[in-house]
Amino acid sequence: MTEHSLWRFSRALHRAINERQFADLEPLIDEDVDWAIYGPIDMFPFLGARRGRAAVLDVIRRIAENVRIHRFDRETIMLGADSASSMLRYSLTALDSNKPISLRIAHFAQFREGRLSSIRVLADTFDLVEQALGYPIHLPRIAS
Amino acid sequence: MTEHSLWRFSRALHRAINERQFADLEPLIDEDVDWAIYGPIDMFPFLGARRGRAAVLDVIRRIAENVRIHRFDRETIMLGADSASSMLRYSLTALDSNKPISLRIAHFAQFREGRLSSIRVLADTFDLVEQALGYPIHLPRIAS
Repeated sequence: MTEHSLWRFSRALHRAINERQFADLEPLIDEDVDWAIYGPIDMFPFLGARRGRAAVLDVIRRIAENVRIHRFDRETIMLGADSASSMLRYSLTALDSNKPISLRIAHFAQFREGRLSSIRVLADTFDLVEQALGYPIHLPRIAS
Repeated sequence: MTEHSLWRFSRALHRAINERQFADLEPLIDEDVDWAIYGPIDMFPFLGARRGRAAVLDVIRRIAENVRIHRFDRETIMLGADSASSMLRYSLTALDSNKPISLRIAHFAQFREGRLSSIRVLADTFDLVEQALGYPIHLPRIAS
């Protein structure tokens, strides 16, 4: 039984972010990959949508310039033949401010011939923004 | 082939929210259900964690008092024997302000004997907060 594409991709991605080693990652990304991390792109320009391997490698380089991953726990996972979804909790450091950031994300990924062809990532972005700012945003209580 | 538990739960949940009909939903929730929607509970007290059927039915009643679902598109889905994950895009109305809200969420659900036993929901909460406020929150550009 061969290893699921998710595990190879996940290892290579984390190595790219923490060690800026892209050699393992590049062949695991489809040339026409469709990539989106939903969130406030005004604050974090490396969020948002990208298309194609070059654009995705570039955005991963930008992520690597901004955060370091200390640990991650995969809380839930579902694997299909060429697909995977999981919910993960990351402990990061924001490199410019040296602030610790704790972030829960969900991803849905598709692979084609072992390469990432599509990924969508959601995060609790309000919590992320408050941690990056370092202070709470005052919110009115809207709902009853 | 029997219908996946997700479809029955999803129909009953939407009916509970829009029509405040809980008769179909109640038997589809495990007595000891573990429930969490991550997000700013100061602004939206119906977010957060709940444990047990009574607490979950109560929180769904609160959601029903605050939003109406106009439509939803299931963008991605993964089904296991007793599990399901999906990414959905909802068009809602906030009932107090009559504001339209567009919300993307990811959920991971577990079922036990056809009943929901666990669910975790993530949303792009910063976008949600801005829509509910009705104005953008000024953010510094943090990342390079």
